[in-house]
Amino acid sequence: MTASEALPQVLERVDRDLQSSLDRLFALLRIQSVSTDPAYAPQCRKAAEYVAADLRSLGFDVSVRPTAGHPVVIGKSGDGKTADNRGGTAPRVLFYGHYDVQPVDPLDLWQTPPFEPRIETLDGGRKIIVARGACDDKGQAMTFVEACRAFKAVTGKLPLDITMMIEGEEECGSKHLFDFVRDNAAELKRDLALVCDTGMWDARTPSITTSLRGLVYEEVRLTCADRDLHSGLFGGAARNPIHVLADIISALHKPDGSVAIPGFYDGVHELPDDVKADLAGLDLTPEKFLGQVGLKIPAGEKGRMLIEQISTRPTAEVNGIVGGYTGEGAKTVIPGKAMAKVSFRLVGAQDPEKIRAAFRDFARARVPADCRVEFGNFTSAPAFEVAFDSPALAKARAALGEEWGKKAVTVGGGGSIPIVGDFKTVLGMDTLMVGFALDDDRVHSPNEKYDLNSFHKGTRSWARILAALAG
Amino acid sequence: MTASEALPQVLERVDRDLQSSLDRLFALLRIQSVSTDPAYAPQCRKAAEYVAADLRSLGFDVSVRPTAGHPVVIGKSGDGKTADNRGGTAPRVLFYGHYDVQPVDPLDLWQTPPFEPRIETLDGGRKIIVARGACDDKGQAMTFVEACRAFKAVTGKLPLDITMMIEGEEECGSKHLFDFVRDNAAELKRDLALVCDTGMWDARTPSITTSLRGLVYEEVRLTCADRDLHSGLFGGAARNPIHVLADIISALHKPDGSVAIPGFYDGVHELPDDVKADLAGLDLTPEKFLGQVGLKIPAGEKGRMLIEQISTRPTAEVNGIVGGYTGEGAKTVIPGKAMAKVSFRLVGAQDPEKIRAAFRDFARARVPADCRVEFGNFTSAPAFEVAFDSPALAKARAALGEEWGKKAVTVGGGGSIPIVGDFKTVLGMDTLMVGFALDDDRVHSPNEKYDLNSFHKGTRSWARILAALAG
Repeated sequence: MTASEALPQVLERVDRDLQSSLDRLFALLRIQSVSTDPAYAPQCRKAAEYVAADLRSLGFDVSVRPTAGHPVVIGKSGDGKTADNRGGTAPRVLFYGHYDVQPVDPLDLWQTPPFEPRIETLDGGRKIIVARGACDDKGQAMTFVEACRAFKAVTGKLPLDITMMIEGEEECGSKHLFDFVRDNAAELKRDLALVCDTGMWDARTPSITTSLRGLVYEEVRLTCADRDLHSGLFGGAARNPIHVLADIISALHKPDGSVAIPGFYDGVHELPDDVKADLAGLDLTPEKFLGQVGLKIPAGEKGRMLIEQISTRPTAEVNGIVGGYTGEGAKTVIPGKAMAKVSFRLVGAQDPEKIRAAFRDFARARVPADCRVEFGNFTSAPAFEVAFDSPALAKARAALGEEWGKKAVTVGGGGSIPIVGDFKTVLGMDTLMVGFALDDDRVHSPNEKYDLNSFHKGTRSWARILAALAG
Repeated sequence: MTASEALPQVLERVDRDLQSSLDRLFALLRIQSVSTDPAYAPQCRKAAEYVAADLRSLGFDVSVRPTAGHPVVIGKSGDGKTADNRGGTAPRVLFYGHYDVQPVDPLDLWQTPPFEPRIETLDGGRKIIVARGACDDKGQAMTFVEACRAFKAVTGKLPLDITMMIEGEEECGSKHLFDFVRDNAAELKRDLALVCDTGMWDARTPSITTSLRGLVYEEVRLTCADRDLHSGLFGGAARNPIHVLADIISALHKPDGSVAIPGFYDGVHELPDDVKADLAGLDLTPEKFLGQVGLKIPAGEKGRMLIEQISTRPTAEVNGIVGGYTGEGAKTVIPGKAMAKVSFRLVGAQDPEKIRAAFRDFARARVPADCRVEFGNFTSAPAFEVAFDSPALAKARAALGEEWGKKAVTVGGGGSIPIVGDFKTVLGMDTLMVGFALDDDRVHSPNEKYDLNSFHKGTRSWARILAALAG
């Protein structure tokens, strides 16, 4: 029986098994695996062991691998334990998720204790799972695990060659995972990575995140005079570093909203027309998107849809600035120093290090000869994107469409998931990002929730995607 | 005997009296009249009483006037106590000084206790008076008092109709003096004000400060989104208030260094050619002036001498800026708010309130319709300048030239002495600012000093100026 032939029974199994799936998820949600706080290290270990045991029960060869931080759980379906896969032409996949969660503070804003998961029924009958990690990422990751479980129950095997990598440091920057991936590249390098850590377009519209913007983060430190000066005595003669910084910042954008750094758009390409048409169809209006934060007028490149501005176009933003006197009242100082933090969201094939160098040249060209500029380098991650003609993408879109009764949209994620970049650059594989989070899930905030519907239909969605990928 | 006829004897008297002049100055310097610290209020009172008694001994009608802060000492030479003055055509003068001093901290940087004045002989035989207030303003003010004393000793009278106003809050912004001057305008309104609180051009070149720049100080508070945003999610769509602020700041100056606000130069006039030539003759090079603070390239209006840039030209400076994340490392925030403090040094007849309104219009025009800008008004003081053809100015220049054997220069002061503006606007009189401070006097710093030569020849200078004004 192929995975596709088994699918109807697998979906039925998912439905029938929903309550015990929830029991398993709740057991994981009760473990206080807060990764940023060293006091919770034993709980992180416990969550890793829980995941390991669960995967073992599905037939994975499991190891809990130490890192300099929290352990990484690796599960391999191994030879002979997967379905036939058309003689090996189905992709071998690496599923990535994380068992750690965000801190819970402020605790007093939680309506019920964050590690006591519960089902709440909202007005209109909508049911939600409330707990820290209900969505990010325990609930989301378990949709994939439960889909595997249903296949195993129905067919006795997993539908594909699957490697699981569930880490414990995503909420503190995956800081040890990068080395881990490099050190274990041979066993982690598969044909395709799958990640369930993103969202739906809305509660009825499934979505695949086909790109993530990269990031270059710079600190610019300017020194003019070797001390703070009195603006009465020196004003008019001494260079003011705030002015120099403002000139650099102001020059970053052209009047049309594009970034003025030479070469900045190298590697940025236009979306295919059909993708653009899909995005236009989503009709994300400034009122809808910016209205929620009190704004109305999109600030990005003129002539671009707002959804392009936030997802598939690169940006330059000043994230912070400080210089001179900023306390109460008036002080007539010309400061000796000023500082700004400047970051760039990257798309397509923009080269982070070229962008960094181009920005530094751009800034240096605007610093007078008797002043000094220094730069601090904080982050560098290339953008990630799936080729729009990827067969896996087409199969996943079709599978999602069948489950949700509505065409799945492909969108760009505005932010970065750095490890996905490494899957591409270090392991040479694309990532399919499918997730079922909703905008109101309060991820990272008190009263985090995950719709029961997201969990249930998410599991069914993965079953369909696995069947489609298996051929 | 006219004042001029008496002058040779008066100067001789100054010379002979130097030691007792110093004793009187030292007695005043021993009083710890720190005005900013309420703990020293009794000492401020004591300094006021000391000055009052000293003036009384010269024949002034003296009163120690209460204010909401430290008292003001008023002394009036009154009718019949002055010389004949050519039938009343000599100007009646108001001398302004202050008995309060700056705090002394950091105390451990003082080589000897700040309120134990002493004479130190430097290499080369140069003698200096070391104490807090030795220069600012006890030493400087006493040059005028001692000149009066010498006249009184020689002629039995003061050379002019003189009103003394010695206040005790200059070092904390003269905050109660403005109301005091308004409330007592009738008795304080004379023909000319005299102030001894400025400096020489250098140790051999006397100087008259003929203008003081005015000041308009604004705070600009920008709000875009109603909260801080994640730059991954909102970057490209949400307006960044730091960018808006940078655009405003960057637009403040034209490429030629001039200020771009419409109407900004209304009321700014060119210096007379002879004054410009005098300034050029001073040869203040960027190396000399900016080199002391580690800079080389003048930042002001192109085509203007550096000495013009710092004294007789108006400026726009950002004194402080803050917005977004300014701590260690990287945070990918688009802040909701950003703030800058912006000030303008004014010259000539520039109208502070017009400048303020023009700046606000200039800023508002650069704020997108969905963002909000608010302004805070901190200071407003017009520039002050003496007419270059003022007879008193010509007489004082000649008198200083005779004393120092070198032509006195007229310079613009870069900073503001707000009360001098009030002398003009409230009392309708010009101010002649003559002082003997040197650049190395460490005013406001530990080990403040005043050259003995400044004190001695300063006293002689005032004797000459008083004689010249008396006709």
